[in-house]
Amino acid sequence: MDESEDNEPKTKRRKIVGASLDQILKQIRPLDEAAMESARKRQEQLTKPRGSLGKLEDVSIRIAGIRGRIASFLEHKAIITMAADHGVVNSGVSLYPQEVTRQMVFNFLSGNAGINILTRHIGARVIIVDMGVVGGFEPQPGLICKMIDFGTKDMTQGPAMTRQQAIDSIEAGIEVVEAEIEKGLDIVGTGEMGIGNTTPSSAICAAITGTPVQDITGRGTGLGDEQLDHKVKMIEKALSVNNPDPTDPIDVLSKVGGFEIGGLVGVILGAVAHRVPVVIDGFISGAAALLVINLAPTAKEHIIAGHHSAESGHGIMLEKLGLSPLLNLEMRLGEGTGAALAMTVVEAAVKTLSGMKTFAEAGVSDVE
Amino acid sequence: MDESEDNEPKTKRRKIVGASLDQILKQIRPLDEAAMESARKRQEQLTKPRGSLGKLEDVSIRIAGIRGRIASFLEHKAIITMAADHGVVNSGVSLYPQEVTRQMVFNFLSGNAGINILTRHIGARVIIVDMGVVGGFEPQPGLICKMIDFGTKDMTQGPAMTRQQAIDSIEAGIEVVEAEIEKGLDIVGTGEMGIGNTTPSSAICAAITGTPVQDITGRGTGLGDEQLDHKVKMIEKALSVNNPDPTDPIDVLSKVGGFEIGGLVGVILGAVAHRVPVVIDGFISGAAALLVINLAPTAKEHIIAGHHSAESGHGIMLEKLGLSPLLNLEMRLGEGTGAALAMTVVEAAVKTLSGMKTFAEAGVSDVE
Repeated sequence: MDESEDNEPKTKRRKIVGASLDQILKQIRPLDEAAMESARKRQEQLTKPRGSLGKLEDVSIRIAGIRGRIASFLEHKAIITMAADHGVVNSGVSLYPQEVTRQMVFNFLSGNAGINILTRHIGARVIIVDMGVVGGFEPQPGLICKMIDFGTKDMTQGPAMTRQQAIDSIEAGIEVVEAEIEKGLDIVGTGEMGIGNTTPSSAICAAITGTPVQDITGRGTGLGDEQLDHKVKMIEKALSVNNPDPTDPIDVLSKVGGFEIGGLVGVILGAVAHRVPVVIDGFISGAAALLVINLAPTAKEHIIAGHHSAESGHGIMLEKLGLSPLLNLEMRLGEGTGAALAMTVVEAAVKTLSGMKTFAEAGVSDVE
Repeated sequence: MDESEDNEPKTKRRKIVGASLDQILKQIRPLDEAAMESARKRQEQLTKPRGSLGKLEDVSIRIAGIRGRIASFLEHKAIITMAADHGVVNSGVSLYPQEVTRQMVFNFLSGNAGINILTRHIGARVIIVDMGVVGGFEPQPGLICKMIDFGTKDMTQGPAMTRQQAIDSIEAGIEVVEAEIEKGLDIVGTGEMGIGNTTPSSAICAAITGTPVQDITGRGTGLGDEQLDHKVKMIEKALSVNNPDPTDPIDVLSKVGGFEIGGLVGVILGAVAHRVPVVIDGFISGAAALLVINLAPTAKEHIIAGHHSAESGHGIMLEKLGLSPLLNLEMRLGEGTGAALAMTVVEAAVKTLSGMKTFAEAGVSDVE
C-alpha cells in the first residue's frame, strides 16, 4: 500500500472543536460498506489461509469501514483517562479511601501508573482529564481540567448530578476528543479513574437494560461477600430513590452516573462522529458505551470492545452492548489499561491488512 | 527499577552454541522460587487493586522465575520460524500444493508475510530456518540452513524420518536458539511453515496422549468435511503402520513428526535450558511442546502458551500441555504470528512489574 493514501491532510481537521451533543449525534453515520468490501477482498488475497487471522481480519475490515478506506497504519494513538469522584462512596461501596482518586491523578501525571507504562509500551499518548475530583487541582502540566463539580452527590440520597451537569460532562468529553483530533488522532481508547465508579456503572447498566442489580455488580477493587451485598443494596436503593427513565440516557446518567462516565460518553460519541476508531476499556467504559448506543444506536458498529474485564458483570454488559472483546487477560485495573493492550492488537490488524503481500504479489500459489 | 539490574553482561553469554540434546536436558532446572516470591511481593505493592493485572501479573512472576530476577524489560526479542516439508502431503492432507512451503520462505525473506509485519510491529527480529524444504535453497541472506532432508517421508507408508534425523533436527534447533542467545535474546517465540504440518502435529498429540485422532484433528488451512475425514484416516493409518512408543518422544517424532517440529523441540529445550522465556505459537508449536515436556517435564513451567488457535483440537492440546494461553484471537495462520502478538503482552507484563510505582513510592493510600 502507498502510505500516502492514509490519513487525511491535517488541514481538513481544523476547527472542529466545540460541537454540541445534538450536533455530534446528527453527524453519526453507518460504516462505509464500500471500504469494508474492498478490505474484505484484500484480506482474501493475502498470503495466508482465508480467515486465518481471525479477529484481526474482522477488526481490520471494521477500521476500513470507520475510516472510509484501508488505512496503512495508525500513527496517532491516544488513551483518554478521565477522573472523577462519587458521592456514593460515603455509603461504603469501595475498599479504597476517596482521596485515592486525586492521588492517582498525580501518579498518572508523574508517568508511573499502569496506564503510563502501557501507553508508552504501545507508542500512544495518554490524556489525563479531571472531570470532577474531590479537592480539585491547581493547573498542572499534562492535566486537562473539565471539572463539573467536586464529585457527584450520593445517588442513594437523590440524583448524582443535575441534567445540565450530565450534558455538560458529555460535551466536555466531546471537546477533549475533538481537541485531540485536531492534534492528530487515528485511534482512541477510553479509560477512567474514580474510587467507587463500578457502582454507578452497575446502576447505569441495570437502569438501561433492566438486568437485576445483583447480576451486574462485582467486587470492584476487591470487596468481600458482605461488602458486595451492601453494594448491591446501595445500587438498588439509588435506582428506587431516583427512578431513572430507561428510555432517556441523559436522565440515567444524571441520576445514577458519574462525571467521568459522562465524559467518556462524549469521547466515544465524538470519536464516532469524526470517524476515529474507539477502543473501549472495561466495566466503566462499557457503561458509557451503553449510554452511547442508547443515544445513537448506529454508534455501536464503530465501537471496538478492548477486553473482557474480570469485574463480574462485564460479560453481561458486553452481551447487552452486543460487542465481542478482543482480549481476556483477567484484568480489572481500569485507567484504560485493557484498551491500551487491545489497541496494539488493532494496530497489528491494520498493518497486516495493508502490509502483507497478496498471493499474486508474492508469487505464492493459492489453493488449487 | 534500575535498568542496569537487567540482563546479564553479554560476556557471560559467549560460547554456548553446540550443546547436545543430552547436555541440554541436564541443564533444565525448575523456576527460581525466590525471584518469583520477590516479584509476587512487588506486584502486591504496586498502585493498583491486588490481582487487577490478571494474567499479566502471573506471567511477570513466571518471567522472574525463569530469569532469576525481576527483569526491567525484554530488549532482545525474536521469533524463530522453521520451515520443512512433509511426505504425507502425497496422501492428500492439505489444500495447498507443497511448493507453497518454499514460496512462503521467499515471502518471509522479502519481509512481507504475516510474521514479518507482526514482528516489526512488536519490535522483534524474525529468524527464518530451512529445516528441510523440498527443492532446497541456494544460500540466501537471512536464511539459516539446517536442512535435514528434502522433506520427510510419507508417514502413512513408514517412519517420517530416521531416529538419527529426529535427534539431528532437535540439535539443529538447539544450535539455532543458542546462536541467537549469543547475539542477545531476552525472549523467544516459536513459529513454523510447512504445508501439511497440522497432520504430523495431530499424530504426535494422539501418539503421546492417547487422544482419539478425530478429537485432535482439524481443518488446517481449510479442509472440507470429506477431506477432514480423509486426513483423520491418514493419521490413524500412520499411527497403525508405525506404532510409535508413547513413552519415547524421539520415537514419536521420528515416526510421525516433521523436521521443523523437531527443530522447534530444540528451540524450546535450548531456551528453557538457558533460561530464556519461550512463547509458543499454536497447534504445531504445541505438538513440539508436548514432545518437550515428555523429554523434560520441568520444562513445562518455563513455557508460555501464546494463544489459543482456531485449529480444532488445539484446546485439547493445551489441556494436555497443562498450559493456559494468553490470547484467543481465533487465529490459525502459524508462522509464529500468535506468539508474536502474545510476546508484546508478555513484554507489557514485564514492564508493568518493573516500571509501575508502589503505593509508598507514589504516595497513594492503600486499602485501609
